[in-house]
Amino acid sequence: VITLAIDVMSGDFGLRSAIPAVQNSLQQFPDLHLLLVGDADAIQSALPANLSREKITIVAAATVVTADDRPSRVLKTRPDSSMQLAIDAVTEGRAQGAVSAGNSGALMALGVLRMGVLENISRPAICAPMPTRSVSGRGGVSWILDLGANVDCDARQLHQFALMGNALVKILAQKPNPEIALLNIGSEAGKGNELVQEAAQLINNDVTLNFTGFVEGNTLYDGIADVVVCDGFTGNVLLKTAEGVAGFIRDKFTSLAKQSFLNRVLAFLALPLIKRFSAEINAEQYNGACLLGLKGVVVKSHGNASAAAFSQAIACAYAAAKQNLPAQLTDALSSQ
Amino acid sequence: VITLAIDVMSGDFGLRSAIPAVQNSLQQFPDLHLLLVGDADAIQSALPANLSREKITIVAAATVVTADDRPSRVLKTRPDSSMQLAIDAVTEGRAQGAVSAGNSGALMALGVLRMGVLENISRPAICAPMPTRSVSGRGGVSWILDLGANVDCDARQLHQFALMGNALVKILAQKPNPEIALLNIGSEAGKGNELVQEAAQLINNDVTLNFTGFVEGNTLYDGIADVVVCDGFTGNVLLKTAEGVAGFIRDKFTSLAKQSFLNRVLAFLALPLIKRFSAEINAEQYNGACLLGLKGVVVKSHGNASAAAFSQAIACAYAAAKQNLPAQLTDALSSQ
Repeated sequence: VITLAIDVMSGDFGLRSAIPAVQNSLQQFPDLHLLLVGDADAIQSALPANLSREKITIVAAATVVTADDRPSRVLKTRPDSSMQLAIDAVTEGRAQGAVSAGNSGALMALGVLRMGVLENISRPAICAPMPTRSVSGRGGVSWILDLGANVDCDARQLHQFALMGNALVKILAQKPNPEIALLNIGSEAGKGNELVQEAAQLINNDVTLNFTGFVEGNTLYDGIADVVVCDGFTGNVLLKTAEGVAGFIRDKFTSLAKQSFLNRVLAFLALPLIKRFSAEINAEQYNGACLLGLKGVVVKSHGNASAAAFSQAIACAYAAAKQNLPAQLTDALSSQ
Repeated sequence: VITLAIDVMSGDFGLRSAIPAVQNSLQQFPDLHLLLVGDADAIQSALPANLSREKITIVAAATVVTADDRPSRVLKTRPDSSMQLAIDAVTEGRAQGAVSAGNSGALMALGVLRMGVLENISRPAICAPMPTRSVSGRGGVSWILDLGANVDCDARQLHQFALMGNALVKILAQKPNPEIALLNIGSEAGKGNELVQEAAQLINNDVTLNFTGFVEGNTLYDGIADVVVCDGFTGNVLLKTAEGVAGFIRDKFTSLAKQSFLNRVLAFLALPLIKRFSAEINAEQYNGACLLGLKGVVVKSHGNASAAAFSQAIACAYAAAKQNLPAQLTDALSSQ
């Protein structure tokens, strides 16, 4: 049995997206047990009648971390929050993984403070799958990290990201020898800034990694790597720019609807597709993000994730917990 | 009379996009004279019969810089290239600005070596307009710099970029007090890496600049600033990611055409629009980019720019030359 602790109170929709996701996930994974962490009364009344009570345990939590709470102070300002108790369930061995749609900074801070960081890791990183043009065998995603936890990185950290991404893809995509690329502003050797140059050497010299070179923002979507490594500042800019562009194109089609009749019909037909493609591009939003480098499995679902997206996050935590991702990360890092 | 030197040989299409752009521009600006730099015979035979020969001067150049030429060696390996002679025409006072669609690195290197860099500037920057949702008075673009000339920046350089972007928007958009923002991964003060924090202080303390705070990749398209400042590594990743996302969405619609009849019709109708929106997003490609910080006006047209895009680049050089952008940059920088 795999037990996961789910913070069902956080995020923009709280129970409204968490409970349907809980129901989906229990149907999908017969050996899954869930700790539902939050307001016990509210959870009780939100649970559908047909949901098997044997598969869940309600864990009462007094408070909820909000988007405005300062991550570094959340332990003090929100004692017994649903987020903290979900993390603690993993730390104390009552669950093998935690999922929350709450404040990312707070989730990372609680993970670091309550679980601790793996040996040989400077700081954990955030990793999410980006969609790519499907390439055979790669399942149409590249996992990219760091997406914002480390805004000032050195080359050693980028090397650690490569090792962690490598271990993650081995587990989640069941690829024996993932292709690792570094994000850069040119594909030729010698291009890029000092950080990327130095990191390329470290990663290339690591015989446990299959380094395939540089990838650029425009070739990212060609699916030429399983793992794309970058510093957290650049990764976050990339993620948000992708979201911005998708939104810009969507709005262009929306404004079409105010024009001629033909354009209105076209917008009516095209908009659902544009929205689907935008959702795909907003990968973190759609699929959840793994916090890598903590001593336990923690998956962040996006704040405004739908029930389907929340289910994806639970599925990711399930796979990582089932294969004991932290132990595999420890192995990968100990050989350094 | 404003005289511009046009490298008509470079870029993917050479004369095929340059000559129609030359014709457009001469119609658009009655006081424009153009030096057409390149293979004199090829230019002669490419010129349309109805183009007034009084408005142009052909300048013979023996060679063409290619995309594969190493920027640092182009002076030696390609003596008398059309790119170099266009730059030299400005340096020697025979033209007030140069336009080329060739190798960006080579253009920057020749600009630095043959024109020199303005006082108080560490290195020139590349600046291009990004499209935004139209906001009244802003004309639907934000100028962003640096887009790749400076991969390792310090805060002083970001401050210089702010000053140069400010001067450029004053001239090109005729805005008296442009709004200057810094690209960051959060909008709250205190967010971001050390570089951005330090640059924010410098720019905020500069009374000649109207600093409005941080902008993120997803709010970039909301048009909340006239000038967006970032280091060249991040800027280049941003530019190429935008291109990548637009291409990804375009390909999604293209692949629709292989599905049901309705989807084929939809793709047929939607694709021209998607292509137009993608072209808008590929701002550098569509509008050309200014090389700021050189002692002369240099505008880079994109390598695979159409005649319309090449015309935009000439128009940009015309405006910058007419208002003597280098002199205005010198003024803006001397007060520091």
